[in-house]
Amino acid sequence: MPPGDGRFAKGLDPKALQFSSSLGVDRRLYREDIEGSIAHVRMLARRKIIPVKDSKRIERALLQIRREIESGALSLGGKRRFEGEDIHMAVEARLIRKIGPAGGMLHTGRSRNDQVALDERLYLRKAIAVIGELIRRLQQELVKKAGRHAGMIVPGYTHLQPAQPVLFAHHLLAYVSMLGRDRERFSDCLARVNRSPLGAGALAGTSFPVDRAYAAKRLGFAGLVENSIDAVSDRDVQIEFLASCAITMMHLSRFAEELVLWSSAEWDFAEIGDAYATGSSIMPQKKNPDMAELVRGKTGRVYGALIALLTVMKGLPLTYNRDMQEDKEPLFDAADSLSACLGILSGMLRHTRFRERLAAPGRGSDFLLATELADYLVRKGMPFRRAHAVVGSIVSECARRGRSLNDMGLPEYRRFSRLFEKDLFRAIDPRDSIRRKRSAGSTSPGEVGKALSGWRRKLRRV
Amino acid sequence: MPPGDGRFAKGLDPKALQFSSSLGVDRRLYREDIEGSIAHVRMLARRKIIPVKDSKRIERALLQIRREIESGALSLGGKRRFEGEDIHMAVEARLIRKIGPAGGMLHTGRSRNDQVALDERLYLRKAIAVIGELIRRLQQELVKKAGRHAGMIVPGYTHLQPAQPVLFAHHLLAYVSMLGRDRERFSDCLARVNRSPLGAGALAGTSFPVDRAYAAKRLGFAGLVENSIDAVSDRDVQIEFLASCAITMMHLSRFAEELVLWSSAEWDFAEIGDAYATGSSIMPQKKNPDMAELVRGKTGRVYGALIALLTVMKGLPLTYNRDMQEDKEPLFDAADSLSACLGILSGMLRHTRFRERLAAPGRGSDFLLATELADYLVRKGMPFRRAHAVVGSIVSECARRGRSLNDMGLPEYRRFSRLFEKDLFRAIDPRDSIRRKRSAGSTSPGEVGKALSGWRRKLRRV
Amino acid sequence: MPPGDGRFAKGLDPKALQFSSSLGVDRRLYREDIEGSIAHVRMLARRKIIPVKDSKRIERALLQIRREIESGALSLGGKRRFEGEDIHMAVEARLIRKIGPAGGMLHTGRSRNDQVALDERLYLRKAIAVIGELIRRLQQELVKKAGRHAGMIVPGYTHLQPAQPVLFAHHLLAYVSMLGRDRERFSDCLARVNRSPLGAGALAGTSFPVDRAYAAKRLGFAGLVENSIDAVSDRDVQIEFLASCAITMMHLSRFAEELVLWSSAEWDFAEIGDAYATGSSIMPQKKNPDMAELVRGKTGRVYGALIALLTVMKGLPLTYNRDMQEDKEPLFDAADSLSACLGILSGMLRHTRFRERLAAPGRGSDFLLATELADYLVRKGMPFRRAHAVVGSIVSECARRGRSLNDMGLPEYRRFSRLFEKDLFRAIDPRDSIRRKRSAGSTSPGEVGKALSGWRRKLRRV
Amino acid sequence: MPPGDGRFAKGLDPKALQFSSSLGVDRRLYREDIEGSIAHVRMLARRKIIPVKDSKRIERALLQIRREIESGALSLGGKRRFEGEDIHMAVEARLIRKIGPAGGMLHTGRSRNDQVALDERLYLRKAIAVIGELIRRLQQELVKKAGRHAGMIVPGYTHLQPAQPVLFAHHLLAYVSMLGRDRERFSDCLARVNRSPLGAGALAGTSFPVDRAYAAKRLGFAGLVENSIDAVSDRDVQIEFLASCAITMMHLSRFAEELVLWSSAEWDFAEIGDAYATGSSIMPQKKNPDMAELVRGKTGRVYGALIALLTVMKGLPLTYNRDMQEDKEPLFDAADSLSACLGILSGMLRHTRFRERLAAPGRGSDFLLATELADYLVRKGMPFRRAHAVVGSIVSECARRGRSLNDMGLPEYRRFSRLFEKDLFRAIDPRDSIRRKRSAGSTSPGEVGKALSGWRRKLRRV
Repeated sequence: MPPGDGRFAKGLDPKALQFSSSLGVDRRLYREDIEGSIAHVRMLARRKIIPVKDSKRIERALLQIRREIESGALSLGGKRRFEGEDIHMAVEARLIRKIGPAGGMLHTGRSRNDQVALDERLYLRKAIAVIGELIRRLQQELVKKAGRHAGMIVPGYTHLQPAQPVLFAHHLLAYVSMLGRDRERFSDCLARVNRSPLGAGALAGTSFPVDRAYAAKRLGFAGLVENSIDAVSDRDVQIEFLASCAITMMHLSRFAEELVLWSSAEWDFAEIGDAYATGSSIMPQKKNPDMAELVRGKTGRVYGALIALLTVMKGLPLTYNRDMQEDKEPLFDAADSLSACLGILSGMLRHTRFRERLAAPGRGSDFLLATELADYLVRKGMPFRRAHAVVGSIVSECARRGRSLNDMGLPEYRRFSRLFEKDLFRAIDPRDSIRRKRSAGSTSPGEVGKALSGWRRKLRRV
Repeated sequence: MPPGDGRFAKGLDPKALQFSSSLGVDRRLYREDIEGSIAHVRMLARRKIIPVKDSKRIERALLQIRREIESGALSLGGKRRFEGEDIHMAVEARLIRKIGPAGGMLHTGRSRNDQVALDERLYLRKAIAVIGELIRRLQQELVKKAGRHAGMIVPGYTHLQPAQPVLFAHHLLAYVSMLGRDRERFSDCLARVNRSPLGAGALAGTSFPVDRAYAAKRLGFAGLVENSIDAVSDRDVQIEFLASCAITMMHLSRFAEELVLWSSAEWDFAEIGDAYATGSSIMPQKKNPDMAELVRGKTGRVYGALIALLTVMKGLPLTYNRDMQEDKEPLFDAADSLSACLGILSGMLRHTRFRERLAAPGRGSDFLLATELADYLVRKGMPFRRAHAVVGSIVSECARRGRSLNDMGLPEYRRFSRLFEKDLFRAIDPRDSIRRKRSAGSTSPGEVGKALSGWRRKLRRV
Repeated sequence: MPPGDGRFAKGLDPKALQFSSSLGVDRRLYREDIEGSIAHVRMLARRKIIPVKDSKRIERALLQIRREIESGALSLGGKRRFEGEDIHMAVEARLIRKIGPAGGMLHTGRSRNDQVALDERLYLRKAIAVIGELIRRLQQELVKKAGRHAGMIVPGYTHLQPAQPVLFAHHLLAYVSMLGRDRERFSDCLARVNRSPLGAGALAGTSFPVDRAYAAKRLGFAGLVENSIDAVSDRDVQIEFLASCAITMMHLSRFAEELVLWSSAEWDFAEIGDAYATGSSIMPQKKNPDMAELVRGKTGRVYGALIALLTVMKGLPLTYNRDMQEDKEPLFDAADSLSACLGILSGMLRHTRFRERLAAPGRGSDFLLATELADYLVRKGMPFRRAHAVVGSIVSECARRGRSLNDMGLPEYRRFSRLFEKDLFRAIDPRDSIRRKRSAGSTSPGEVGKALSGWRRKLRRV
Repeated sequence: MPPGDGRFAKGLDPKALQFSSSLGVDRRLYREDIEGSIAHVRMLARRKIIPVKDSKRIERALLQIRREIESGALSLGGKRRFEGEDIHMAVEARLIRKIGPAGGMLHTGRSRNDQVALDERLYLRKAIAVIGELIRRLQQELVKKAGRHAGMIVPGYTHLQPAQPVLFAHHLLAYVSMLGRDRERFSDCLARVNRSPLGAGALAGTSFPVDRAYAAKRLGFAGLVENSIDAVSDRDVQIEFLASCAITMMHLSRFAEELVLWSSAEWDFAEIGDAYATGSSIMPQKKNPDMAELVRGKTGRVYGALIALLTVMKGLPLTYNRDMQEDKEPLFDAADSLSACLGILSGMLRHTRFRERLAAPGRGSDFLLATELADYLVRKGMPFRRAHAVVGSIVSECARRGRSLNDMGLPEYRRFSRLFEKDLFRAIDPRDSIRRKRSAGSTSPGEVGKALSGWRRKLRRV
């Protein structure tokens, strides 16, 4: 409240004003605030709550204010007064300064409680659209890379140990699938975000004959947050948005970790282009995967934003409490961080080259085909558990003698089991092994090809 | 792996075995594990990967094992051996002990990596159904209470200060709306949970001609987690489930906080029945809202479970890593805690009586109608901001003189503004004020009545 | 690294540069950075690693740069170039622009890895001093208020239910004790912070004959972070600082919650002065405890900052990784938020008046003395458990008949137990009850008086 | 409270009883509870608050109860009744069953509020001792390994890229330093834990002439938590303990990550012994670093425990609230998890062999010595920044031509700078480079040797 208001003998202590002011943060919402106010004022005029000519003056002035802010003419430190404890008061104050007391009509039938809830939903709607599009682009980059390396075989890992050969394209498409669910989550969240709280008033609704549905429709909402107390009290969709950001960052942190590993001297699998790598202030030879490290690191701030808002809302009695002002920075920061990470990963991926290699540098095939050998025995009739143990012994002996599975001859194999025959060597050929995979969604070239074209179709812009 | 396996010269150190064993936790999944194994073995037989008669023996033995576990005959500390590093190995070991080496066929074309992913999805599917139903019942209790107090006016609060009169039913229905979104979130999550990872193998798919779709259908899944690497690597739906639990707990913590406030001597608004209140070991007069406090407190462990799994998954390279074994306890604990809290709140609400009171005990109406007075002036033509200031001065004077708005006469009012006329006293009648609300979703009896019947319809069991 | 460096064929992509630049955040460390550089350059000259006259030129130029930044002449958007990917490069670039290539000597025997670790420790040392002093002042305000209300009896609560009468001073002093431990934690943390990492180089130490101890001493450190790998790899003291902030905020959130409750119409116990309360944009009667709500709300961001840095550091291999750049914003934000909250609570407390009241408004003494009655019976020889049950029955009967303990006569009491005699009425006098407390640290006037003077002494500035 | 207590007409609903009972969790505190009760009862007798002979009977019975629990004779599911809503009521109920109503005297001058606070502090004191000792042992294992590999040179990494050669011992000692600070944190925490809350009563102290100092001394406390309200209201030392656990787990997660990397086929640096590695249910060749992965994964639950208790305590009004019952599971779980991880890492380290290798397998020295080359030029008079750029160009050319720094001849070097002379080749000898390091705490053999003997001395058991 402006100092000197009727109820208060004296104004806020300057330190308290500074402590409680949110204009430094929520001025980012000026577009949403003005957009919402225009819809509100038109509705007021339409319902004859205020005169049409006043509504027109207000709308014109609001559009001017938007231009003033966009051009930088009206700013926090600027010459023209742009001040107030929050963006709502700042815009209104500027409005009244422009057109006089008639500007005071704008707030008829409205409260800052429903207004801020509205602004945030307008903001979230845009943020979700931007993030959804950035996810789609990263998916496309991944699909493009996968297509380019459609035949490249790499070791698949479990426990960071070579496990079975897989197509690199299959590995990349796993991320495409993860990101696909991330997009779904944002779109499910949008369905709950895209409802208008405007008209809920301070908490009880209003006695002015407002038309909530009309304003909602003008603003492109799919419906209302019906219950007026609910509309001003809750921040669950904000938390859901943050949780969706956190889960996406979790996925990105895994991809970032892999990029760091792959570009290590030990892996020597990926080379990040100069445009996305950095050097050292002291070690002249360094070429560091900083962008990937930063993506991994920024996971922390997004998790933190989620926990921040969950903490804010824990145990708050209804309806609005000032604690809830603390919801904006986590939202902005998480949306900005996630967007930046998505964009950077797309760019970095485009600038990264991958080298085909089936095993760790300087090593044989790392027994990557041992499972195939066991399956071979099963196909010849041995129960799986027994086959697993037999191959375990073979691997163990090879390891002891520094040999790979291909170094052994048939007679040696037959010392372990009479079921081995000459065709065993096809079983342990990586390309054959991959081709042999028959299950839906497996790493076989056929299945990966199907997945590739499926994603290409799905990711086409609509 | 069991000690003495082919690859290993010696077994695990007993401390390492104890450290890494998850049987103490994941034995809870025995039903899901056996259900999944039966679907798998039937599929194997159908695709002629194993003989039908072996599949039948395996299935029969698995059903026996389930009964043994259910009856307690087979247990961790029990006489019959039930051991292994996890539920999968424990069931398989028991199976082989029952029917011999043929039991080893069960694991053909499967890995523990897709198996555990399957078990968890089967578990989550049930947990979501249980939680969804418990939310519905709590919503019903709230609607029932709201219906019983359809005409009760209470102060609505912002900043925990009396703000405007509202119907108590409207306040309760705000929670019904919140819980409605919670159910939506769980049901959106279910759409992602309800896909089968079985057949993804260790990570690459399998060379056995398995029929993933058949097994998925038998298990009631709506589809597959297609990409095999994705299927064994990700835990995003688990985190999404935990986030949905955390958001619901956030809502419950707010209701719990209100129950604690309402049953304080100061509020004196709610009386929790003896069946849901407790005493003190030392203060004989105490009747404490412990159940509400515990619900509020249990919010902590659910937030903790969410952060735990987010932390586990941060920065893990693909595909499966043993870290992911740590996902089960948070899931179980969050599902159990949330279910218990939902049940307790339903019971407690049923046993709580509410006393009508419009203002804080021992006080007048707390200026709850001041906004109405301002709106009155607006309707008479004063711009809102000016009306707000005028009423602020009136309230200020009343407060100074220890009077309420009803204590003032028309002449006194007219000293503040000439627009006041006799009808002002209707404006500050709480019942009239509520009746005057006209916006959709407001606290007016009409709107609340509509909401009540809407919810009654929606919450009817299908 | 500046684009065009020897190792790199082309520069960073502008988006990558923007993504990875930390100057927007870490320019806050300019004082620390320059302070550290001056100590470093003096040491270099002293050890004859660089010529004394160059060291003097560098020092002079660094002091000029500090003045340029302080005066705003050198700023991010300013006319003079102040740019680089971080504060270290920005200062160095400006230095070289000022004095030519000789400026390049500054970085001899140093790396950004030990430099940033140094800057943060210098920052934390100051932050801890500031916070420690702000805690002390809040403790003083609490002690002052306690002293002013030395005789005021209020209900003590458990479960937010009236439990036993206590001195309000005793309640306030509980917070003084909590804050005392908070200060201890910061001071324990300081002992670990106050060690110099300078001289650790990139990770291995340096081959220049630097004198780590000399530089450390000049900078006022109590010692070194010895192991050079440890010195550049760890951020544990930063997390410890954030944990200390989080625990303090937990304490403040509790006090804030009480201020919100106390200023509710229902409690009607505290009146926050106009200088620390705010109004409503729509409800003219409102006087809201916004400052207390914001303190409570800001707990969220500090918890979030803690979880953010814990997440960043989880699972990072040694030594320095770029993820660690993400440590600064949580530090700055937590330190700023906590400092602001401490200051605001001091101010608000000074502007808050408390009204004596022994029971909830409009109620009797709420059976606050029931425990005293039970203790009375114990003193007369009844075992405690039995006495507890007897008094429970008395309270129950009173409650049913709407009476308080004082309304009952001796004969009535004797119907419950023959041990009751006339002196029972002294037992249930609140003032007598408080006076009767005999345990150390109890709410008796003697103990509280001792505590008050003890704290007054301890909090005197040294 | 037991059902049927004086104040309550009817007992708790069975579901509410189950929901609120903590016996399943806090029975772990039986030793602490009985230890505390014995000290209390002796103090009561000494102060003549209860007769000596009753105190003796109570003490004898309490010792019997402890034996009954230890032997399993008294258990939750056992034949003898061991029930109650928590461990305090369960022990007291058993006591009264054993010696009749005199058992009721035990609770004189005490409340469950100070009792549970006492039990937790006794528990934490032991937990800190156990953890401190386990940290010390892990430090000793690290020092032992470091001593055994005193001369082994390995690449030191920044950004997971080879940076400079370091002694492996130096790397291991970095962890010893980190763990040293962890122990300090626990010991600082202990100073705050080790104070007795006993005698604070429910919140106000007690009117019985108890001797708090006597009981505290008997229990080995260093002092009192003075203020009685503080004593029963706060859980800050518990959170501090959890934060110390979380920071230690952060350190362990980094070491675990390194063990996972080092035992990858790509790094091929560490071989974990069979006793601490596991196989795969499907891939016979696998030898997985599961223990390290689990340690890394368990970081999640400890972070979760910290956030859980921070959440519980946020915004709770004083004094005791039932929410605080939720503090025990996080404490137990974090202490157990951390202890297990410390023990496992010690064992695993003992069973791990390391292979000397200076560069990634199959690669040259990875330009690890480039910084030395730059320092060489600086020593010859070139400013550092310029030297850095020159060496960058050399590295760049080598990389392009697939050569290492040792492959180049002097004439080639001199094309880059005339300052190069024959002695440059000593500069790029790794052993010489390490030997040349001169700063305190560097990786030079002398400094590492000093550190080794310093730690050996410090870690000797006292």
